[in-house]
Amino acid sequence: MKAGRHFLQIPGPSNVPDRVLRAIDYPTMDHRGPAFADVGRRALDGMKGIFRTEARVVIFPSSGTGAWEAALVNTLSPGDAVLMYETGHFAWLWDRLARNLGLQPESIVGDWRRGADPDAIEARLREDTDHKIKAVCVVHNETSTGSVSPIAEVRRAIDAAGHPALLMVDTISSLGSVDYRHDEWGVDVTISGSQKGLMLPPGLSFNAISEKAWKASQFAGLQKAYWSWAEMEEPNSKGYFPYTPATNLLYGLNEAIDMLNEEGLENVFSRHDRHGQATRAAVEAWGLEVLCARPEDRSGVLTAVLMPEGHSADNFRAVTLDHYDMSLGNGLSKVADRVFRIGHLGDFNDLMLCGTLSGVEMGLRDAGVPYKTGGIGAALEVLGRKWSGQMAEGRDAKSAAAR
Amino acid sequence: MKAGRHFLQIPGPSNVPDRVLRAIDYPTMDHRGPAFADVGRRALDGMKGIFRTEARVVIFPSSGTGAWEAALVNTLSPGDAVLMYETGHFAWLWDRLARNLGLQPESIVGDWRRGADPDAIEARLREDTDHKIKAVCVVHNETSTGSVSPIAEVRRAIDAAGHPALLMVDTISSLGSVDYRHDEWGVDVTISGSQKGLMLPPGLSFNAISEKAWKASQFAGLQKAYWSWAEMEEPNSKGYFPYTPATNLLYGLNEAIDMLNEEGLENVFSRHDRHGQATRAAVEAWGLEVLCARPEDRSGVLTAVLMPEGHSADNFRAVTLDHYDMSLGNGLSKVADRVFRIGHLGDFNDLMLCGTLSGVEMGLRDAGVPYKTGGIGAALEVLGRKWSGQMAEGRDAKSAAAR
Amino acid sequence: MKAGRHFLQIPGPSNVPDRVLRAIDYPTMDHRGPAFADVGRRALDGMKGIFRTEARVVIFPSSGTGAWEAALVNTLSPGDAVLMYETGHFAWLWDRLARNLGLQPESIVGDWRRGADPDAIEARLREDTDHKIKAVCVVHNETSTGSVSPIAEVRRAIDAAGHPALLMVDTISSLGSVDYRHDEWGVDVTISGSQKGLMLPPGLSFNAISEKAWKASQFAGLQKAYWSWAEMEEPNSKGYFPYTPATNLLYGLNEAIDMLNEEGLENVFSRHDRHGQATRAAVEAWGLEVLCARPEDRSGVLTAVLMPEGHSADNFRAVTLDHYDMSLGNGLSKVADRVFRIGHLGDFNDLMLCGTLSGVEMGLRDAGVPYKTGGIGAALEVLGRKWSGQMAEGRDAKSAAAR
Amino acid sequence: MKAGRHFLQIPGPSNVPDRVLRAIDYPTMDHRGPAFADVGRRALDGMKGIFRTEARVVIFPSSGTGAWEAALVNTLSPGDAVLMYETGHFAWLWDRLARNLGLQPESIVGDWRRGADPDAIEARLREDTDHKIKAVCVVHNETSTGSVSPIAEVRRAIDAAGHPALLMVDTISSLGSVDYRHDEWGVDVTISGSQKGLMLPPGLSFNAISEKAWKASQFAGLQKAYWSWAEMEEPNSKGYFPYTPATNLLYGLNEAIDMLNEEGLENVFSRHDRHGQATRAAVEAWGLEVLCARPEDRSGVLTAVLMPEGHSADNFRAVTLDHYDMSLGNGLSKVADRVFRIGHLGDFNDLMLCGTLSGVEMGLRDAGVPYKTGGIGAALEVLGRKWSGQMAEGRDAKSAAAR
Repeated sequence: MKAGRHFLQIPGPSNVPDRVLRAIDYPTMDHRGPAFADVGRRALDGMKGIFRTEARVVIFPSSGTGAWEAALVNTLSPGDAVLMYETGHFAWLWDRLARNLGLQPESIVGDWRRGADPDAIEARLREDTDHKIKAVCVVHNETSTGSVSPIAEVRRAIDAAGHPALLMVDTISSLGSVDYRHDEWGVDVTISGSQKGLMLPPGLSFNAISEKAWKASQFAGLQKAYWSWAEMEEPNSKGYFPYTPATNLLYGLNEAIDMLNEEGLENVFSRHDRHGQATRAAVEAWGLEVLCARPEDRSGVLTAVLMPEGHSADNFRAVTLDHYDMSLGNGLSKVADRVFRIGHLGDFNDLMLCGTLSGVEMGLRDAGVPYKTGGIGAALEVLGRKWSGQMAEGRDAKSAAAR
Repeated sequence: MKAGRHFLQIPGPSNVPDRVLRAIDYPTMDHRGPAFADVGRRALDGMKGIFRTEARVVIFPSSGTGAWEAALVNTLSPGDAVLMYETGHFAWLWDRLARNLGLQPESIVGDWRRGADPDAIEARLREDTDHKIKAVCVVHNETSTGSVSPIAEVRRAIDAAGHPALLMVDTISSLGSVDYRHDEWGVDVTISGSQKGLMLPPGLSFNAISEKAWKASQFAGLQKAYWSWAEMEEPNSKGYFPYTPATNLLYGLNEAIDMLNEEGLENVFSRHDRHGQATRAAVEAWGLEVLCARPEDRSGVLTAVLMPEGHSADNFRAVTLDHYDMSLGNGLSKVADRVFRIGHLGDFNDLMLCGTLSGVEMGLRDAGVPYKTGGIGAALEVLGRKWSGQMAEGRDAKSAAAR
Repeated sequence: MKAGRHFLQIPGPSNVPDRVLRAIDYPTMDHRGPAFADVGRRALDGMKGIFRTEARVVIFPSSGTGAWEAALVNTLSPGDAVLMYETGHFAWLWDRLARNLGLQPESIVGDWRRGADPDAIEARLREDTDHKIKAVCVVHNETSTGSVSPIAEVRRAIDAAGHPALLMVDTISSLGSVDYRHDEWGVDVTISGSQKGLMLPPGLSFNAISEKAWKASQFAGLQKAYWSWAEMEEPNSKGYFPYTPATNLLYGLNEAIDMLNEEGLENVFSRHDRHGQATRAAVEAWGLEVLCARPEDRSGVLTAVLMPEGHSADNFRAVTLDHYDMSLGNGLSKVADRVFRIGHLGDFNDLMLCGTLSGVEMGLRDAGVPYKTGGIGAALEVLGRKWSGQMAEGRDAKSAAAR
Repeated sequence: MKAGRHFLQIPGPSNVPDRVLRAIDYPTMDHRGPAFADVGRRALDGMKGIFRTEARVVIFPSSGTGAWEAALVNTLSPGDAVLMYETGHFAWLWDRLARNLGLQPESIVGDWRRGADPDAIEARLREDTDHKIKAVCVVHNETSTGSVSPIAEVRRAIDAAGHPALLMVDTISSLGSVDYRHDEWGVDVTISGSQKGLMLPPGLSFNAISEKAWKASQFAGLQKAYWSWAEMEEPNSKGYFPYTPATNLLYGLNEAIDMLNEEGLENVFSRHDRHGQATRAAVEAWGLEVLCARPEDRSGVLTAVLMPEGHSADNFRAVTLDHYDMSLGNGLSKVADRVFRIGHLGDFNDLMLCGTLSGVEMGLRDAGVPYKTGGIGAALEVLGRKWSGQMAEGRDAKSAAAR
């Protein structure tokens, strides 16, 4: 029995707001009845607004992993080459999934400390003169490292190379937290999930689909049934689904979309950005290093922190969980036990962040990790700029959009 | 604004009990943290009890349709022949899904008015002397018709034919409502879903996997990623999942398993059986015909009713929904508009059934369908036998088990 | 472990709708903070609409019993005479409470089978030439008997007698179920509670206060603190309360007021009226007797039924609860074990009523009470009139209003 | 639309835990039916454990104010003298309430900066040689000031004076947060409420009643009805209540009692004590003054902080609410606008406290209040002692119990 509220500061699932929890516990309804059409339509239309697209959106009862699979099996054929950019563990997992589906993924392997490099992508595509590469796959916000990739620039790189590959982007941990624009940025398939910026429990995933991707799907040779976009089209047009949807999570999705729109997406993005800045200020004050080495790629969703040499990140996380009832994210594969991750996404605010950073500071102390005090003070200083007439530093919405 | 409680009398999703709704609205937790192991283990172990198996059970964040796909892609290779038995619409959908996945399904087409015929299966398998057929697929409770197939007899038929095909059974609408025994009946893959007898919202699906099926999975050539059993094994052994599970639905699943065990599975089955009897007594008193023509195949989960010639089942259902706020199931494909379906499954009791049957009787009247009054009286008579010293008629647990 | 939903068919607490249950489980807020003002104002203003008054309404964190006490202690002085009309057990309890507070209640004792008799009240008041009687207290809907008193006629009787006594009316079990008009009917203090027609859990009570009653409160000599109207005035004017209000029940109250207004009060009243008619049709078909002997006084909230001589109502209720998981109301004091009461109020609809009446019919059978079958059929016939072009019989809104 | 969770850091209502919120939204049940007896008994018996008494406990559907009234009207007669000790605003309100009920309260007026002084009480009682004083009333934890009164010492003072007055103690904001022992400390009537240490929404109140108080109640002349203990006795003995109880809040109470017992009352008390220490360390580091001047009286429930001269506490609170979505308590009457109060009670933990103190520090800054940075650091230091081998300073359970 732990008193008080658990601090769920992993980079997703994020804290689910009370409004969403209450929405999902309404009685399940007839998903074929007339009243359901409104639920389905609100969800499908509402997600277009979140993806900033006029194109098709489909919703699967599945984890985000399923939406990765859906993006590939609907557009590609056995043996197709796919260019991935390994920004971190999740990009690597997507590569692996593509291989399991019979594709030929090829990864540009980054150093896990920055977003994807558009120049490297352009260079590789220019070499692919016979257009064997059918898709370029990039993770927008790499959840394992806290690096954001410049999607608009990747689009420009593909175009500059004159290459016809589809652009597929994983926004599982960025949608609803970091500025994202499916149409404006020329993305062909955007993948997302419910349990991060959308503030829902896990169990829903999404594809936003450009007209070009839709056309590709008519010639794609990979086998598919559950993930088939084609089956969605007719029922979706009336607010229904080809098989039983996850009704109660859809109730929650509609509530979450309302909440994001009430706050305003721009405000949501700047809130996340500001929390990222405050967190990094704390990390620097502690004398620790942010994993993401390229300042303009640092994420408003999570901050991955490198542990001082000789100290176990997992031991620190275990101590923090035990002493302060806070869950932090672990380092994955390459950076296992070297890195811990602080989630500052979703339904989150300044004082929750202050509690979170206090927990990190006390956890460092209790775990015997060398650090300097003063992290919270630094964070408080950044948070206060909003009210002191100074604008928060860093990327404003326009420059972020231009990337 | 409708006063009072909606009557959700489709054959699934069923009425979700308050305990389950409250369980799913607890805050989402860290699915990689130590506390989650208990949630995962309770779900995985608890489902073994419900499937009556000692073998592996896997849980997917998906609809039941996904579990159909999982059963096939984990055990079969491109071009494999599969013997299906078309008991109704859902069996037909499974055939179609198998074809979409690159298999060669072949269906024994029934008349949609009874369960699968073990003799027909045996005969077909005897012809398959070179064992091209790799799996026999049967729907236990055909949700479109209300017919139950005799699974133990299908097993005996396969054995009698000396055929090595895997036996796959869809229990999406029977598990937790009709007696089912994965191990005792020698099933290789059992498929199920959350939104029927398990009394949950949709969004979880299941495979129970015999040792033989598990071995087959190591040689199966169909591509798979999301549905891969192999990926489940290691994390499941510790209570975890290979990708983000549908945390909040798992909370509900554990609550539902507790409820089923508190009532006792035998009591749950006899409750459904008794409600099926009472419903059929009402249908007969109204002078209408039960779709399922073979008495011993009639389902305790739902009753499909044939409309009198010249009357629209869908119009009747629309009137009933409008006048009495009750959802009934529609006739699907072959029997569209000819049949309506009364769900009497899940978290359900005598007075809910009486309200349901009253709604049907009033709906028939209001829609101008010819019928005789007295259906409710007949149902009340059947329901009363429990208390009058007379045992309820019909299949007892033993005989059902023996089928 | 009982499957399915309990049938809570006592005449209050009534079935609480899901929307209200979800509303009351939102986090408690600062009842002195700026955001609370809106909650308080919506509740106070909203209740004026329900009471149909422009005058003051106060809300207590208490049961309805507290609002009885509040009405008396705010307006009367030690030793004051009060004229009560004993329509049943609750009117008798109010008399007893008045005595405990140091008043001199005097009751006109009815036969518990009809509403209050305005002529008897007028006659008594005419005798009271020196106006010792300071208040006339009447229960609008007597919950123990199912009789409705004609409040507008009582007002006319008081006026006809030229008597200055205050008119106090208990609407604990009628408000939000039976037409009621505080201002138009000239009531001075209306008493009510949350757990009946307002569809909330118990814990809130109400006084609606005429200008005359308010003035009287300035000279009332009974001691008071918790119940003091005077303390309410200033904080209520801004949406606040003098001491901590029952925050979460107020959330529910606002939701319930919205629901009543969405359905429309007139529709709410006619729904209850129609369910009363259908219930009485069933009772008559069973060959049983409705306790309320005066047809125009029969309640749309509940129906009290006389048991045949020699049969125990409490045994019947126990059997019904055990066999069919339905709670019915018991007979109180004078009619203990002679009467059972069927609640058909609050968040309720046709099929819930059919389930309820089926439970009564089966309970009668199982308990060995002599009855004729056919009650449900009779109820179905009444319920169908709404759709068959025939208007439901009986008092229309206008005639009810005129009473 | 504010993102994230509101910080409700007033000294009650406190943060209601999710388990309690889920408990109160279960369907309302028949409060006269057999299943309710268990709910009622668990609540009544469970509260004995919390009060640490073997004597009677009664539960009212009301705010804590009602329980003050109940304590007085059940034991005293019109005109009785009552000795109050004015530790702050709430003690003063109780005096006022006593006067409104027709008693003759007399207050020893403290300076609002410490608990009650047992010597002053003893001195006054010694003067009262003819025992006109019938009760001594003390507030255990004065919610307006954050001072705890030494109840065991007050008992000893009364005994030392050889005075027969009843000892009545208000524990509305201490029960379930600060060590309290009704029997051991010889209290006659303990008053409490649901919305503080009991972690419930407001709407329930309590009296724990010594045998001496119970006997006094048989001769008490004040009028009473709703608050009558006598009416409770018979129904309570079976788990029922004399009028409709606040069913859903009782569900929550039983859950809250379970939670307190799971954590262990001693652990609950030391948690509050430790949070009080950490808060005061922050206040001191900010260079501000804690209102409670006597160190051993400082509360683990809340900390009242004096604003620097010339600065408005209410403006600071408004800024903090606006900028950081945190509610703090205001200064009441004498100390209005001079004091703000930080609640650290109920369902609360270290990181919630850190968020709270961060909000205070940022609010001071944004409101232009002079302060020194470093409050959070000081708090973190105190919180860390638990894990650094050093015991937390201050009163241990034994010494507190001895007071």
